[in-house]
Amino acid sequence: MTLREEALHMHRVNKGKLETVSKVPVRNAKDLSLAYSPGVAEPCKQIHDKPDTVYEYTIKGNTVAVVSDGTAVLGLGNIGPEAALPVMEGKALLFKSFAGVDAFPICLNTNDVDKIVETVKLLEPTFGGVNLEDIAAPNCFVIEERLKREANIPVFHDDQHGTAIVTLAGLVNALKLSNKKMSEIKVVASGAGAAGIAIIKLLYNFGVRDLIMCDSKGAIFEDRPYGMNQVKAEVAKYTNRSRSEGSLQDVIKDADVFIGVSVADALTAEMVQSMAEDPIIFAMANPTPEIMPELAKEAGAKVVGTGRSDFPNQVNNVLAFPGIFRGALDVRATHINEKMKVAAVHAIADLISEDELHADYVIPAPFDPRVAPAVAAAVAKAAMETGVARLKVDPEEIRKKTELLSSIGKSE
Amino acid sequence: MTLREEALHMHRVNKGKLETVSKVPVRNAKDLSLAYSPGVAEPCKQIHDKPDTVYEYTIKGNTVAVVSDGTAVLGLGNIGPEAALPVMEGKALLFKSFAGVDAFPICLNTNDVDKIVETVKLLEPTFGGVNLEDIAAPNCFVIEERLKREANIPVFHDDQHGTAIVTLAGLVNALKLSNKKMSEIKVVASGAGAAGIAIIKLLYNFGVRDLIMCDSKGAIFEDRPYGMNQVKAEVAKYTNRSRSEGSLQDVIKDADVFIGVSVADALTAEMVQSMAEDPIIFAMANPTPEIMPELAKEAGAKVVGTGRSDFPNQVNNVLAFPGIFRGALDVRATHINEKMKVAAVHAIADLISEDELHADYVIPAPFDPRVAPAVAAAVAKAAMETGVARLKVDPEEIRKKTELLSSIGKSE
Repeated sequence: MTLREEALHMHRVNKGKLETVSKVPVRNAKDLSLAYSPGVAEPCKQIHDKPDTVYEYTIKGNTVAVVSDGTAVLGLGNIGPEAALPVMEGKALLFKSFAGVDAFPICLNTNDVDKIVETVKLLEPTFGGVNLEDIAAPNCFVIEERLKREANIPVFHDDQHGTAIVTLAGLVNALKLSNKKMSEIKVVASGAGAAGIAIIKLLYNFGVRDLIMCDSKGAIFEDRPYGMNQVKAEVAKYTNRSRSEGSLQDVIKDADVFIGVSVADALTAEMVQSMAEDPIIFAMANPTPEIMPELAKEAGAKVVGTGRSDFPNQVNNVLAFPGIFRGALDVRATHINEKMKVAAVHAIADLISEDELHADYVIPAPFDPRVAPAVAAAVAKAAMETGVARLKVDPEEIRKKTELLSSIGKSE
Repeated sequence: MTLREEALHMHRVNKGKLETVSKVPVRNAKDLSLAYSPGVAEPCKQIHDKPDTVYEYTIKGNTVAVVSDGTAVLGLGNIGPEAALPVMEGKALLFKSFAGVDAFPICLNTNDVDKIVETVKLLEPTFGGVNLEDIAAPNCFVIEERLKREANIPVFHDDQHGTAIVTLAGLVNALKLSNKKMSEIKVVASGAGAAGIAIIKLLYNFGVRDLIMCDSKGAIFEDRPYGMNQVKAEVAKYTNRSRSEGSLQDVIKDADVFIGVSVADALTAEMVQSMAEDPIIFAMANPTPEIMPELAKEAGAKVVGTGRSDFPNQVNNVLAFPGIFRGALDVRATHINEKMKVAAVHAIADLISEDELHADYVIPAPFDPRVAPAVAAAVAKAAMETGVARLKVDPEEIRKKTELLSSIGKSE
């Protein structure tokens, strides 16, 4: 069987991948009297008296909604909420396997921004956090911004921030190898979708000031008279301050870093050769990168990362989101803020020691069991330090707990 | 520890009762490539091409949303969606334990009818069925009616129909003991809430024609000039055709059956004595029934049922809803119609053989492992016979499958 056939077979025989399971026995009248009537009235009354105890007596504090409208699923595009369900189930089980977070797929039968925002807010009582997934730009930006303001639980759009965090972690380590500083590098990004925008923002938060973002029409600059939208206009306010015009080929010259979240083969060997010394390439178009790693290396790239598991330095979101939500939930964070994202970047990057660090190992492997525990602890710490945590917990305790809950690297 | 303390403790140490669990292993890169990227794209594409295959490749076909707005929770009233969550979690695990149905609590932060209807419709892609729970009358009637019309998956308000089905099953058997026929009896019901209305409707569907419903203002009759609402007005069209006025005490005279879903001590011994020979009493107010069983028996009652597990003949919804959804899901029923409810009534009643039948055993015990399998098979059969099933499956197969999936009566 090919991988495709095997995947299809696996989904069919199991009828999906997720199940809801009782954490307590329900076999006899005594069990029923505790888990259901009449015993269940006690936690109900407690929560009614003290609303915050919903985190103590229910699943809320460990449960994340994986919300999608199915408009930008994998590389498949707008395939609708039903066809998106296998991906959202898969995401839910990554949450559980990597960090013990219970997650449930919520595939919404609308792509109206107002309706999505309202529905997620109406669902809040059950959930401790919201992971937005595979929602097309620019709706995804508006939905996330509005929910961050209007909801009382942390909201995180993984396609934006997960990708940005893991890319930045790789970049932090790659710069050590090329002996360059964030504040001094020139970065050119190709692709102005959800991930591209988030990466640019996070780079800016990391102190990168020489930033140019390209879309299919070339370099984006302030007041560019064509192909702009609100999100690009905002990006243009703090990127490309010299207002360079032209194609990717024009602006890539002398860049230290290329970040691609665009389309196959967007970057040529000639462009890499035109970059500064020891260029760093993250070519994350899927399934075919902007440039194949061997070609980039031949053209002089110091470090190459892609989105693929069959090349070194895979930018895989699973390094970020399970630990981020684990940490945020465990301190009952109200938001996932920039400092928490930065903490996640360093937690991931720092797992590779200076001795181990080399051009083909700037990002930990997706199944490195240390990652989620380290991210969870760092994110929880940052949440407490920035005042968005409603509980105080020793980060080391969170790290150990995440280790215990994770099934990664463990045998059955 | 008292039961209350034990229930509270159990909820606290487990942080709720439900978890989401992967049905497939996720331990290494191969597992990930099947359950998530890139393998997951295959079922996505299949579903996009043939929407109905969502039932083959995802959890939809085995997953029910347990939806509540928290306005009528147990005997606690309108305690809100967060405080309702322990009950909805409990309900979800009953679905799983009794019939292998995956269920997830959806507690909605609104009690606006339009918003609840719209939200449930937007959630449809993930779910194969909707169980409405603990939503106050009269909203519950409107929400159910609208969703039955507007949603494409079966919708069932358990507080109405679950209670009605189990009560009717008890009545079917009780009438065998008193040698009376449905078409000849006089039934007086006390309480015009969700359960009361549903019981009256189902009694009518069973051929009972002499029906009087009482609310706190006494007997309901057509065009009664006080205390009416739309639902009561509808009931009044086919009940109390002689337009009897007066209190419960007035109209209970010569009744063969009393059905109470009202308040403690609503029925006196004198009222029972005024009933016809061998009266049948279902006194389901919780926790204190309309009349205590021993008192009713002393006053001449032939059969007494209550909502309580510490008396004989407990009317417990768990005898109905797990099997009903199991059967409906297994044949992909688009609705749960009256014939399917009638089939459930007989499936429950018929489990007690004529030899076993006696006044203290007209309803099977909640933990009788035969019940959910029998109900599932009967409901599936009725769905196929009435044209609402989208799959044809041998009912006997469904019975056996339900037996296998149920954890009731089995050891660990």
